[in-house]
Formats: sequence, C-alpha cells, structure tokens
Amino acid sequence: MINVGIYGVTGYAGYELLRWLGRHRDVRVIFTASESQSGKQLSEIFPGPLEARLIAPDDAPLGDVDVVFLGLPHGAAAKTAVRALDAGVRVIDLSADFRLATPAAYTQWYGHEHPAPDLLPAAYGLVELNREQIRSARLVANPGCYPTTVVLGLAPLLQAGLVSDPTIIVDSKSGISGAGRPPKQNTSFVEVNESLSAYNIGRVHRHVGEMEQEAAKLTTGTAPQIIFTPHLLPISRGMLSSIYIRVPETLSEAAARELFLQHYANEPFVRVLPAGQLAAIAHTSNTNLATISVTLAKPGLLIILSSLDNLVKGAAGQAIQNMNVMFSLEETEGLR
Amino acid sequence: MINVGIYGVTGYAGYELLRWLGRHRDVRVIFTASESQSGKQLSEIFPGPLEARLIAPDDAPLGDVDVVFLGLPHGAAAKTAVRALDAGVRVIDLSADFRLATPAAYTQWYGHEHPAPDLLPAAYGLVELNREQIRSARLVANPGCYPTTVVLGLAPLLQAGLVSDPTIIVDSKSGISGAGRPPKQNTSFVEVNESLSAYNIGRVHRHVGEMEQEAAKLTTGTAPQIIFTPHLLPISRGMLSSIYIRVPETLSEAAARELFLQHYANEPFVRVLPAGQLAAIAHTSNTNLATISVTLAKPGLLIILSSLDNLVKGAAGQAIQNMNVMFSLEETEGLR
Amino acid sequence: MINVGIYGVTGYAGYELLRWLGRHRDVRVIFTASESQSGKQLSEIFPGPLEARLIAPDDAPLGDVDVVFLGLPHGAAAKTAVRALDAGVRVIDLSADFRLATPAAYTQWYGHEHPAPDLLPAAYGLVELNREQIRSARLVANPGCYPTTVVLGLAPLLQAGLVSDPTIIVDSKSGISGAGRPPKQNTSFVEVNESLSAYNIGRVHRHVGEMEQEAAKLTTGTAPQIIFTPHLLPISRGMLSSIYIRVPETLSEAAARELFLQHYANEPFVRVLPAGQLAAIAHTSNTNLATISVTLAKPGLLIILSSLDNLVKGAAGQAIQNMNVMFSLEETEGLR
Amino acid sequence: MINVGIYGVTGYAGYELLRWLGRHRDVRVIFTASESQSGKQLSEIFPGPLEARLIAPDDAPLGDVDVVFLGLPHGAAAKTAVRALDAGVRVIDLSADFRLATPAAYTQWYGHEHPAPDLLPAAYGLVELNREQIRSARLVANPGCYPTTVVLGLAPLLQAGLVSDPTIIVDSKSGISGAGRPPKQNTSFVEVNESLSAYNIGRVHRHVGEMEQEAAKLTTGTAPQIIFTPHLLPISRGMLSSIYIRVPETLSEAAARELFLQHYANEPFVRVLPAGQLAAIAHTSNTNLATISVTLAKPGLLIILSSLDNLVKGAAGQAIQNMNVMFSLEETEGLR
Repeated sequence: MINVGIYGVTGYAGYELLRWLGRHRDVRVIFTASESQSGKQLSEIFPGPLEARLIAPDDAPLGDVDVVFLGLPHGAAAKTAVRALDAGVRVIDLSADFRLATPAAYTQWYGHEHPAPDLLPAAYGLVELNREQIRSARLVANPGCYPTTVVLGLAPLLQAGLVSDPTIIVDSKSGISGAGRPPKQNTSFVEVNESLSAYNIGRVHRHVGEMEQEAAKLTTGTAPQIIFTPHLLPISRGMLSSIYIRVPETLSEAAARELFLQHYANEPFVRVLPAGQLAAIAHTSNTNLATISVTLAKPGLLIILSSLDNLVKGAAGQAIQNMNVMFSLEETEGLR
Repeated sequence: MINVGIYGVTGYAGYELLRWLGRHRDVRVIFTASESQSGKQLSEIFPGPLEARLIAPDDAPLGDVDVVFLGLPHGAAAKTAVRALDAGVRVIDLSADFRLATPAAYTQWYGHEHPAPDLLPAAYGLVELNREQIRSARLVANPGCYPTTVVLGLAPLLQAGLVSDPTIIVDSKSGISGAGRPPKQNTSFVEVNESLSAYNIGRVHRHVGEMEQEAAKLTTGTAPQIIFTPHLLPISRGMLSSIYIRVPETLSEAAARELFLQHYANEPFVRVLPAGQLAAIAHTSNTNLATISVTLAKPGLLIILSSLDNLVKGAAGQAIQNMNVMFSLEETEGLR
Repeated sequence: MINVGIYGVTGYAGYELLRWLGRHRDVRVIFTASESQSGKQLSEIFPGPLEARLIAPDDAPLGDVDVVFLGLPHGAAAKTAVRALDAGVRVIDLSADFRLATPAAYTQWYGHEHPAPDLLPAAYGLVELNREQIRSARLVANPGCYPTTVVLGLAPLLQAGLVSDPTIIVDSKSGISGAGRPPKQNTSFVEVNESLSAYNIGRVHRHVGEMEQEAAKLTTGTAPQIIFTPHLLPISRGMLSSIYIRVPETLSEAAARELFLQHYANEPFVRVLPAGQLAAIAHTSNTNLATISVTLAKPGLLIILSSLDNLVKGAAGQAIQNMNVMFSLEETEGLR
Repeated sequence: MINVGIYGVTGYAGYELLRWLGRHRDVRVIFTASESQSGKQLSEIFPGPLEARLIAPDDAPLGDVDVVFLGLPHGAAAKTAVRALDAGVRVIDLSADFRLATPAAYTQWYGHEHPAPDLLPAAYGLVELNREQIRSARLVANPGCYPTTVVLGLAPLLQAGLVSDPTIIVDSKSGISGAGRPPKQNTSFVEVNESLSAYNIGRVHRHVGEMEQEAAKLTTGTAPQIIFTPHLLPISRGMLSSIYIRVPETLSEAAARELFLQHYANEPFVRVLPAGQLAAIAHTSNTNLATISVTLAKPGLLIILSSLDNLVKGAAGQAIQNMNVMFSLEETEGLR
C-alpha cells in the first residue's frame, strides 16, 4: 500500500485526483489538504460521491505518507515541495513550478526568480518519453496539458528526424477547467458559452517554453520553434490540438502513421488511430487516454490531431500514472 | 425623436438595450454611462457591432434626454432615479428598486430601508396588465424576469376567478445571464455547465414578493401564495416557468386556453399556443415575445408553461416596450 | 467470476455498462452484441478507451454466461429475454418491457399487447426498495431513470404515511442521452441547445404508469397520482426532479429530513443532503449516486429535489448494482 | 419596395432570412416556400415570433417578385434558379451550386456534372470584393461560410503581394447549424456536446475549391494552396478561422494591421480589431459583422483570426447584403 497525501484537493485537478485514487487498489489517501477550506468536509463544498476531511496544509502529517500530489497554484507548489522532500516524501507536482529545467528558462517565461532553484531540474513526468528517469525520481513535474498533446504528437517525428522545417504550428482548443476554479470574468458562463476565443497567441503563452524544451530534447537537428494558438472552448473538460508539421515530400501518410503506431505500440494510454479516424475530444473524455491521428494534407505537410482530457491525461490521471511508475506498480492501475 | 440615456450599458441588460435601440426608428441614444468603464469606447470592452463612448454617470447630460434606462445594481438605481426625476427626465428602471409598491414590502424582502421611499409606488411596467398607468408614468419599474413569466401566466385565471387554491407552485429555469455579469463562483462555466441546480427555493427568493404583489392585484379572492423553485439552467439566455394551478374541476382545457387566447388577443408580444404545442425557450430567444401553453393535467389541475428571453421580454425589450407606451410610439417599434 | 453478456452495446446505456464493468473485479465480459454493427470492433465506431468485438445477437454464446444485460429497444428486449431465460441465463433488462407488473398495465401505457406476458411480473430492480426480491430473481427490470428519481424521493414519506394529498407534482429535467442514440429532429444539437422544452406533460408520459405502480406499493392510503412534466435539458447526461408533496402541517423540515436520513442510512448510493444543500445534477454526474434534498416550502408542503446520472444510477450503474445483489457480490463493487 | 420570395424557409438559413427581412424597411416578403411543409403555417413548426404561410415551391408566384432567395439543398437550388431566371426574377442562391465558376471545377469538387452549366459563372456574392459585379448580376452565388472567413482574412495580403509562401494553413471551427437542419448522427446533441471534432481535413472539403478559386483571383503570384482543417464546435452558430500565412520577414504587425484597416476602412460589416484584441465568435453572433485580428507570431508568420456568424454574414445576412447591392438600397438596411 502506498500512502499518499493531496494538497489543493478542492481545485479541479485535486478533486479529480481524489476521484481516480478512490479506484486504485494499492493506494491509501492519508490526508487531503486545502488552504481555503480547511476544517470542513469535502461534501460540504461538493456533495458528490467523495468524502474527505480537509486539513490545513501546515497540519499535513508528512511523516505518514510516501508521496504527495500538489494541486496548488504556481509558487505555492514549490514551497510545499521543499517541505515534503525535506521530510523524505516523494513529490508529484501538478503546477508549472518544476517543468522548466533551468532557473533561467523559468525566469524567461514566468518573469521572476524561481522559488526553489536547487530542486531543478526535476524529472519531467511524461511517462511515455521519460519512464526510466521517473522511476527513481524524488520530484516529478507533471506536464502541462497543452504540452502533453503536443509533445506526444511530435515525438515520433522528431526522433526519426522527419521534421523538415523547425517552425511548427499548433492550434489548440481547451475546455474551461484548464483555467482553474477561481471565478474570473473570462471564464464566466455567459462569456465563454456559445463562443470560441483565442488568447496569448503566437509565442507568448508560457507553455511554449515547455513544449520547445521537450521538443529540443527529442531532436538532433534544429530545435523546433512552436507557433501556438490556444483557444477557450465552451466545454468543461477536454483538449484537442492540431499540429501542422513540414516533413520530407517522400513521406507517405501510411509510413507516417506506421511510425506513430510503432512508437506507441506498447503504450497503454496512447492510441494511434487508423486511417479514416480523426482524434476528437469525446473519445478521451473522462479517460487517461491520448488519441492521435495522422493525416497527410499534401506531400510534405502532416496534420497531427492530438486529443486528451485536460483533467485526466493532462493532469490527475497522468499524475497517477507517474506515481505508478515511481512505485513500480502496474502502470494502468486505477486508471482504467 | 426621443432622446434617451442608458446607465450601466456594460451589463448584460444595458448592452442588450443598446442593441435593440439601434433598430428603433424614433430614438436617439444621447449617452451611455458606465461606472467602471468610463472613458473607454464600448468596443474596447466588447468588439461587436455596437459602438459608444462610455461616460461617467456623474457626467451624464440629463438636460439633453427625455428618458433614461437604468441598468444598474439595486440601490444604485434608486439614487440615479432621484437625480433623473429631479432633472425632469422620465425613468425606466431595470433594477428591483421600485418593483415593490411600499417601503414595508421592500424592507420585508430586501432586509433594509428603501433608498427612496418617496418615489413609491412606481408604475409596475408590465405593459400587458398596466398599459394606462405606464402611459403617464414618470417612473416605471421594469418587472423582474421570473415575475414576468409568472404574472402573464396567471393573469387570465386570476381575473376570471378560476384559481381554486391560493397555493400556486412555480418551477422556473433561468439562463445564466439572469445572474448578471460580475464573475461569481456559482456562475463560472464549469460550475453550471452540464448541470442544473436550484437555489433559494420555497418562499425565500425576492421575486416571490413581487409575484405575490401583482397576483394579489389581479384576484378578488384570497391572495395567491407562490411556492417558487428557481433553477440555474446552463444556457446564456432564456427562461421557462412551469406553473401548477388548481382550478375548478369543470374547467376544460379548451375553455382555459380560450380564456388565455381572448385575454391576450390584442397583445403583440404574448402568444398563446394552440393545443399540441408547448412553450419552450428556443421559440422566444432573441425576441420580445412571451409564449404561453395551457395543459390540463387532470380535471382541476392546470399546467401553464411560460417562456421568454430574460434579457429581452424579461429586461431590455420590455423596457423599450414601456418606453414606447410612455411616449405614445407604436408599441412594437424597434422590437420586431 | 461472473460471466456476462451485453446486448446493445453501441447504445448509450450499453456502452456505459461496458465502461463500468471494465472496473469490476468479479466480472468477465464474454460477449458484446450489436444488431446493427456486428462484425466490427467497438473502436471502429468509437475510438475511445474500450475495445470489444461486436457479434450478431443471434451468435451470442448464451451457454457461456451467467447473466445478460439488455440495452435494447423496447420489444426487442422481451424477445431476447425469453431466449436467455430459456438458456438458463439470468437477465437484467434496461428497457421498459418488464417494468410494469401486469399485461393490462403494459397495454394501458404502451398501447399494444405485452410481447412476453408469461414473464410478468419481473423483479423491479430498484435495489433500495426491493433488495430481497432481486437477490433471487431470474429476470430483473431495471427501473426507468425518471421513476428512479421519483420513487427514491417519495418512498420514505409514503411508507411513513405522511403524504396528505395523493396528487403529487413532479417537474423533471433530463439530459439528452435519455432519448437514446438514434438521430432524431428533436434531439439534434441546434434544436435542444440553448433551449429547454417540455414534452408529454400531464399524465401521458409512459413513466407515469411505472411511478404510480411503485408508489402504490409503498403506501397504505390512497394510491398517489403523479402529475408529471418532463423536460429535455441541454446537457448530455444527468437528471433532476422537483417533487411537490402535501404533508401534514405539523411535519417540520428537520423531521422530514431525519426521516429520509434514517430511511437511507445504510444505502451506499443514496445521499440525503443536510440543511443548506440542494440536490444538483453536477454532484451525481458520472457516479452511481442519487442525492436528495428536503425543503419545507411552507407548513404542509415539501419540495424534494432528487438528482442522478440517467446513464449510471438511471441505467447502467443501477443494472450493475442489481447484478451485484443477484450474485451476492459487494453491492458497491465496480461502482466507486 | 422590393418584392421577394424565399425557398426553403424552414431550414436554418431560410428561417434566418425571414427573421432579418422582417426588419428591412424596403422589402415585402411575397411568398415563403417549403417542399416538405407546404400547406402549414410556419408557427405550426416553430411557434416563435415569425408567421408565414408555407406554399409548395411549384406554386410560387414568380410573377409577383423581383428576387428570390434559395435556401435549398445543393442541386435543387440550380433547378429552381433556372425557373426563376426564366421568369425574369433575380436569384440569390445560398447553396453551393453556383459558387465555382466553371463546370469543370464543379465536377472536380462535387463529383458529378453541373446541373445548369449555362448559368456559370454567376457573380460571387462576397460584397466586399465584388460589389460592382453584384450590382448588375441576375444570379448571385452567396459564398460559403468558411470561405467568407478565409477570403476576407486573406484578401488584403494577397492583393498587396505579401504572401510569401502559397501554402496557407486554415484551422476553422464552425457551430453546428452549419451542417443544416435534417437530423444526422454526427450532429445529434450527445455526439457533439462536450466535444470538438475535425472532419474532411487536408484538401478534401469542398470549400477548399471555393477558397482557392477566390484566392487565385486576388493574387498576382502563385495561386495559394489551402490546407484546411474544419471542426464541429458545440455551439449553435458562429465560426472562427485561424489562418497562418508566411509573409516577408520585414513586415511588422503594425504594418500588416494597417493594411487590413485601410482595406476595410469603408466596409460596414468588416471590423479589423486593434492591437490587443483578438477575433472571437461572441463578438459577431447574431450580427452581419465579420471581425478580423492580425497578430505577428514571429517575423515572417502572421496569424489572422476571422470570425462571423455562419447564419448571418455566412448565409442569410450576406444574402440580404447582396440584395441591397443588387437593388441599390442602402447596404446596411435591415442588417443593423
């Protein structure tokens, strides 16, 4: 039995973690902490199927757990990670605090000093690319949801050296839960419903740094430059990215698809779709699955569609997958 | 030409007013005021088809207008009404400040003293019931959206003395714009999407006071008592109320429907549906129409369904309808 | 290990069954049948996390299974039930074919002869009311989604003799998946989105017969008469019913709630909410939970709100709960 | 007064036409035809604010009208156009029948012979590019909704010779009404709600031919080749296209925006957004407006976002704009 603690359990990702962990045979949730709601029962806030006592983060019994999940705002996560690691507890951080490998990169994208530079680099928790490093890691940075769709959609091509133009266009659409739970004007129902809006487009969204960092690791040639257009999609959960990649004119659609099929042949949570099927959000909702479709638009130009549930494979599910790897459990346990 | 001013134009109802007034042949919008956004152009906030310079409420040129619309929060509306009336300007108030006829009733439902008791009672701006009084009114209280559905749905029966039990059950569902524009946890997209939730049920919602006040005026018997279950419906705009009324066992469905048909025969904005059709929100969206269906569930029990768009017939459209009556314009002008 | 077969796996309820059974530790799915899609793999139709070979219903190896689930249209279900029972296989039918206890009642509500009258009455599969009979049943009729909300919301009051007027008003709202998967004009996206519409209101919806049958069993007084207003709600899944019940004027809200709390104290899938919380659809989505809130609108008039997920507690989840009872498994297995 | 007839008034575009024409001061609707619903009143089908008698297409009094709008399926439109033109009536066709200029292009994209090749080429009804030709045209082909977003978003750059790579990537998202009213599996509520799915991606969607035809007219260099990824977006109406264009590295964002601002300076229905605002669907819903934003992702790569309401500027509103031009009316009449 692995004993776990959750920080930030009243956020969307934290709640989702608790929901999935409830189905995990090898896990015991020892504590659930919430800064703003401590002292309450979870059902006082959301009278659904889950029950938990919410404790103050400072009261968390770190001595009783093997691993903690951090569903905390950026910044707060780093501070809690330090405390947990000092107590000998392994950490899976769902925030962005440890996704960039260097303090310099962090400062470039987040505009201030890293709160715990000594802990960098953490293991980047994209299991499909980084399983071995995760296995022994004390601190795992759970990837961002957008980067998960994009890095999974690029990896086979980058590793095969088949990206012929480093400029890669990514047009992504995310369900609103990706923006977190605190109320904001731009995530109010009437503002997003029956609309679609882009934000932070070009090369300014912070996830661009994360995508380019991971893409650079995978390539032997020129590091890719991501042109990124994220959108707020009027659905609660789910994400779809269209990725436009220049490839050699000789690469056929069948060969490209075969490359993806082989690359992910043994991956339980990545499904490469056959010819005639396109990745769509519905297929992956409420699952830890990522689906990928491969379409040759014309010779030399591939369209990769990459879909996942931003709260599962893009957050809580991927975090549990990381935990399973870190503790040598069956990788799919609790995630079916 | 009627010269009008709008306060609170950046709220949902205020914006909707400006949209409809743009199609009105006899109206010139002289000013559009916004407390929070003054100094900007409207298109800086919402780059849609409308353009307007947003001025501070204190800078409003009251001397240049014949009438003002108040799309303001409760309380602020009363203060602005006093100023406008003092300047000789007629007022159509979309807030709840003047809907209840007495200071005592206001205190009962709103929990504090009325901010301008000398102005009570205002004309209650439900044109279909109160056309003559509105014509000459200086101050018109635009009805609440829920009460509009309910009072229109009850009036023919109450006036005909056909309500045999004063307890009337009203189960209402409202689009989220009814809760206003400022962001709140309970109107955030993810909280309301794919859900339906009731709130303030029983006899506690403030609109109960308004409904009962108007129902009492229409009855010669015991004043009705409304049991009210409002819900937040995951749509942007629109409202549907189910009204359950005990009637004499001898009343047939056809006779009841005929009563409604005759009652509203000359009303341009109330459509009583024939047998076989039920009121639904889609029929009235983006229109100033209220539709009503009449169904006999069993002898002695009628189900009235009453639908409208909460931002049009439930707010801005009804306000323009009031203006048309106040200034002896064609009642449907600008509202087609 | 229980060996199960599923008929109609490409419908919404059938797919949901397969999804939940995949998490059940004591079940092996032996076959998945589909009339229209036999010969294909499930992922050809819906490339999600589930995989299954779709066989023709006639090819189903009934000799290899202990129980079958019927996610079939009304009529087709009865014929398949006969075959399965003849083969010694227990049956859980998700259609309406066996919900009414007598051929006469069936003919009254469905307008034609019952296709298998000898099998009536089946066990009515509302576990919370009927656990003992289900345990030994060969044929279980899984309840309708609307009746599940209503019967759970009425049972404590009816059994306690606290319903003082047999006329009970039920205003229900259902997600669109309740209408099934085949495309229809009235469930097309644009027709239902941003709307709310009632249908078959009064005493004509077929579920009225089922509700009244079950309510009659629970009461010692006059059999209740249900006034029923179902609505199509623009969400995919979930259901909320408002139930208006006359009770003795002396019954307090606290006493009424206590009655519900005690009645369902040991039920794993019914949660009676404390004062201050109201049942809402979000709380029960994607769970087998039903939540119930109890509000006294005024002395003598209770409002019960009853929520569930129409595809889980209203269909597939309840079916698995029935299976667990029938095979003496832990009742919550596979349903967490 | 212009006398008009509408064919196909019960479809989404036909109904929208009738709605907007009801606000037009210079138009009298003489007939409204419907193949499937003739003999009924419109309110029997949709009890909203509009009323009309539905006649059989063959009974249409073509001698009484100046112009007809064809809201008909592809193929049926061409036949009706022939009849109307023979009767001396001008035609605005909302189908795809006359959008491609040559029979050969039609056969290439639609797979069969053109039903009325003698009528080709018709005037392509994108007023902003083609005003003079439309003025005198007898037959106007109302543009497709996707091409309207794309051609408006490309025209200034193409005409200025600033497109440095003919391969242009277009990632578009359309509300479901774009798929028409007849019920289909892939536009059923549950199938599209809470999802996003692409279809016909690459260079296979029929609108690619239309986009490339119009783009070719605007360029002096190599004809653009469109890579097109359309998506079904779970909203009723509205469309947003992201267009990725290679431009000379020396072109600044400000210069590119200025080019658009000047190009559309006198256009009442195209709004080029200032720096800091991005085109979004909500801005254009229920309006005849197209909004365009210009963002330089990096030197040499522009992102144009282009938004409109597919039923208004993408169909009915654009058709009325064409009529206004054809009959020398004020171009904005009826469209405010």
